[in-house]
Amino acid sequence: MKDISPGDLEKGLPLVSKRDAAHKTVVNVGTHAIGRSNFTVIAGPCAVESQGQIVEIAHRVKALGAHLLRGGAFKPLTFPYRSSSVFELREEGLRYLKKAGEEAGLPVVTEVMDPRLVERVASCADMLQIGARNMQNFPLLEAVAETGMPVLLKRHFGCSLRDWLGAAEYLLKGGNPNVVLCERGIVAPHTHQPASRFIVDLQVVPAAQEMTHLPILVDPSHSTFRRAYVAPVARAACAIGADGVLVDVHPAPEQAAVDPLQALGYPDFERLIQDLRGICKVVGREFESSLAPR
Amino acid sequence: MKDISPGDLEKGLPLVSKRDAAHKTVVNVGTHAIGRSNFTVIAGPCAVESQGQIVEIAHRVKALGAHLLRGGAFKPLTFPYRSSSVFELREEGLRYLKKAGEEAGLPVVTEVMDPRLVERVASCADMLQIGARNMQNFPLLEAVAETGMPVLLKRHFGCSLRDWLGAAEYLLKGGNPNVVLCERGIVAPHTHQPASRFIVDLQVVPAAQEMTHLPILVDPSHSTFRRAYVAPVARAACAIGADGVLVDVHPAPEQAAVDPLQALGYPDFERLIQDLRGICKVVGREFESSLAPR
Amino acid sequence: MKDISPGDLEKGLPLVSKRDAAHKTVVNVGTHAIGRSNFTVIAGPCAVESQGQIVEIAHRVKALGAHLLRGGAFKPLTFPYRSSSVFELREEGLRYLKKAGEEAGLPVVTEVMDPRLVERVASCADMLQIGARNMQNFPLLEAVAETGMPVLLKRHFGCSLRDWLGAAEYLLKGGNPNVVLCERGIVAPHTHQPASRFIVDLQVVPAAQEMTHLPILVDPSHSTFRRAYVAPVARAACAIGADGVLVDVHPAPEQAAVDPLQALGYPDFERLIQDLRGICKVVGREFESSLAPR
Amino acid sequence: MKDISPGDLEKGLPLVSKRDAAHKTVVNVGTHAIGRSNFTVIAGPCAVESQGQIVEIAHRVKALGAHLLRGGAFKPLTFPYRSSSVFELREEGLRYLKKAGEEAGLPVVTEVMDPRLVERVASCADMLQIGARNMQNFPLLEAVAETGMPVLLKRHFGCSLRDWLGAAEYLLKGGNPNVVLCERGIVAPHTHQPASRFIVDLQVVPAAQEMTHLPILVDPSHSTFRRAYVAPVARAACAIGADGVLVDVHPAPEQAAVDPLQALGYPDFERLIQDLRGICKVVGREFESSLAPR
Repeated sequence: MKDISPGDLEKGLPLVSKRDAAHKTVVNVGTHAIGRSNFTVIAGPCAVESQGQIVEIAHRVKALGAHLLRGGAFKPLTFPYRSSSVFELREEGLRYLKKAGEEAGLPVVTEVMDPRLVERVASCADMLQIGARNMQNFPLLEAVAETGMPVLLKRHFGCSLRDWLGAAEYLLKGGNPNVVLCERGIVAPHTHQPASRFIVDLQVVPAAQEMTHLPILVDPSHSTFRRAYVAPVARAACAIGADGVLVDVHPAPEQAAVDPLQALGYPDFERLIQDLRGICKVVGREFESSLAPR
Repeated sequence: MKDISPGDLEKGLPLVSKRDAAHKTVVNVGTHAIGRSNFTVIAGPCAVESQGQIVEIAHRVKALGAHLLRGGAFKPLTFPYRSSSVFELREEGLRYLKKAGEEAGLPVVTEVMDPRLVERVASCADMLQIGARNMQNFPLLEAVAETGMPVLLKRHFGCSLRDWLGAAEYLLKGGNPNVVLCERGIVAPHTHQPASRFIVDLQVVPAAQEMTHLPILVDPSHSTFRRAYVAPVARAACAIGADGVLVDVHPAPEQAAVDPLQALGYPDFERLIQDLRGICKVVGREFESSLAPR
Repeated sequence: MKDISPGDLEKGLPLVSKRDAAHKTVVNVGTHAIGRSNFTVIAGPCAVESQGQIVEIAHRVKALGAHLLRGGAFKPLTFPYRSSSVFELREEGLRYLKKAGEEAGLPVVTEVMDPRLVERVASCADMLQIGARNMQNFPLLEAVAETGMPVLLKRHFGCSLRDWLGAAEYLLKGGNPNVVLCERGIVAPHTHQPASRFIVDLQVVPAAQEMTHLPILVDPSHSTFRRAYVAPVARAACAIGADGVLVDVHPAPEQAAVDPLQALGYPDFERLIQDLRGICKVVGREFESSLAPR
Repeated sequence: MKDISPGDLEKGLPLVSKRDAAHKTVVNVGTHAIGRSNFTVIAGPCAVESQGQIVEIAHRVKALGAHLLRGGAFKPLTFPYRSSSVFELREEGLRYLKKAGEEAGLPVVTEVMDPRLVERVASCADMLQIGARNMQNFPLLEAVAETGMPVLLKRHFGCSLRDWLGAAEYLLKGGNPNVVLCERGIVAPHTHQPASRFIVDLQVVPAAQEMTHLPILVDPSHSTFRRAYVAPVARAACAIGADGVLVDVHPAPEQAAVDPLQALGYPDFERLIQDLRGICKVVGREFESSLAPR
């Protein structure tokens, strides 16, 4: 395997590479700024299930401290059979999500999977998510780059940091500098199990920060698939220096339509926020923040 | 991790699962049949570089025993910068490939990456390849399923057999039964190196044959990225029971526009074919075959 | 792969398994107690290089907050050729280490590799380390169990939690209940690189705490092999809930005889201790502690 | 990760490295020669269960074509509790094994785990096996080197080729040139499952043959843990160019005391030998061979 070398950088990663140690990008999403000294919490359900559900969650996570609202309307599913009609509300879900964000005053982020739907999804979102499975879907990257909107680029579970930065380079080369990286667990050696399906690569946070000026978040929910590990991994992500976390939150986690094993209920989320505020103080991050970070 | 269980099969994989030990699908591509007792060799350059190049290769690999011609016109590239104008000839490359197949009398297989281009690629090919990076690009799978054409579905290097069969299930559910699987190496533990970048999962061949009626090939070129290992891995694939191999062949391998470290020259390819014929006899496969396998 | 199930526990892990959620073992090493609500810092050089070196380090890490002193006298080396005479001081190094611990008032932990040398190493140490490579050296485990001394059992980089607990079970079955686990990085998918050679499996901390009553530490130095990642990973280990960390500290890290890329100098170690104290408050751990933890 | 470079070779692997392409070591075990153009089959039960059992197996595998007899008397067990008294016959098993080899006229290979027992095991064996878990048990390597006897050095499932050759270098440096490598599966990415617990790294065969003059075998039984995959992987090992295979054979495989899921019965072993003879002809190996290989 070729590691990232200065030569590689010159050839392949001119736009995502850091110029110097102080070079850090801040990505503004609505009224919130991701990166620099801010610590960002993005929270919400894995899937938008109904208008009532997403509006209620938006108000609650906002009150508890979240900075952005997440919710899936289009979902990549390993098997083509849906076990429930609320798995994917698609366009309907997008409208509910947009309404929830507006009512609660939270910018919203949601996934787009098809280059033919980018415009439609973009019209309902403040930030577009490229899911792990589409990290190297190059036509999709090019279509999303054209929107100029903030992008949350998840790392594919089978891809290296170098591959990931290559995907980010497509977005920047396409004219879109508003890219935020998000680690969500990588293929684990089988010996990692039964801890969980993937292993969260927390070391990639300092590794990425050496290479690139882009902010980097961690998703403790999809990287562990297990409720009991979500708060510990989120705390560890904050302690290791990540720019934020993306957490599945659901009012009745055991009954979530998608991934019911991993969502946090409100009380667990509230405790987590309190811990994250404490760790932010230790690592020099600001939890309450707005468009003008230091 | 959930292993594949009968329950999973009922839920997620009804169409790709075997009914019984004798249940084996044959996929006809032009006048060639993939599967059952046939052993299939697909050969050609990683990238179509010019009309002259691909026509010459087609004639030569046909004469040496290949059953299908491969060649890339659209290439997924990790970084957005092309080092050469012959990396991706796109529509032009498709026309050359089609012409080469017709002149040599070989069905052609080529990759499609964008759902908006499926129709155009399909008009120049006898079989559509879904590349590893797009294995879980579900809108693309649905668009390819609609063509009804034979599909070569490569395994993502970060995906399990279960994920792979889930992707195949999308194709079958979309009305397309003509699916051939192709292993091309998976994410390796770092201890596998420096043998090569990926590790070819040859055990997945008998594992897949227990689960599914679909044929399964092995790509020894992209799974090793190293010329010296290509023929040994191709022989091993034949010996372990694969339905065929997909091999990069180039008249001047060191000067190939893409992946110059892995292509075989004609003399190496000729020796490999001779060895494969020998191993086919041991494992009960027919190398020379047509539309009517036993 | 078989996961740990209640049946496995009954068969293979009766002594290391938790009876209930409150079941937690405290391991006393000299006057320090590892486990329960204590957070333990073990610090010192990878290799004992001279009497002066180890005595000085002992005094300094003690003053900065460390609870135990580490230092290698016998080292497992991948290749049989020593590049330096101070790589392994063996018996001489043991005497220096013992003296340093006594002078500074710190209990000492050091590695033993050979069942024939257990008695000799035990006479100079307060805690015996089973290195990663010997985690499944069963004759060694049996010989160490017989001493009854506290044991630091490192996880082999190729072994699962189940294998690891099996090794701990050998120690407990041999009559020695004083076992502390220590994660030090596992075989990584190649895609984890170039972040570092191994990937630290922080999720194993909550996973182990669900299964066993034994304390669990993390070694951020050997799991990352890279100075810049040591403090971030140590902070993350504390935040995820580990019972402590084992950190390489050296007065002139770049000149360390063994593993010069990973040791912390005193200023970095001091900053780390300060951060760990802060995170301990958030996660409810006591940093200053003695034989009587709450 | 550092790959093997010429510099590494000079520093760490002077004795195991090849001088030139023709440099190949032959290791004589009793009257059989392993390496060069010979293909070697080592067969026998995972564990010696009784005198009658091992004597019968020895005669049968000899008649079917095996060149050496294997059988375990000391077994490394993940958990300290034996489910059966025939798991480990220890000294008793060694005597039975020696007798079986003498009666059938087959050299025998068996594992040694404890440096204190090397002499005793050596007195009953023609070749000593270092098991995977002890590959980096350096005191054991040094003790085995001193015997000068042929050594079968299995690769640890968590170790790289470089680590493995480092362990072989210990043996050669200790004065013992009679070393045969044996691949037995490595830690797999979880996505390899459910194919089996480990993944057999067949690519390591050509990779090792580039680096070292030592012969290399493959163990298809312990690398797959699954009877149905043993013969396919053994055929693949032969096709890829290995110097032989090490196969678990048992008269009643389902009732084997250890690893009952992986042993072959006599009919399966007979068919496998027939296939291996066929593949040997294709790859230029001699199956029938004696002390004087070409």
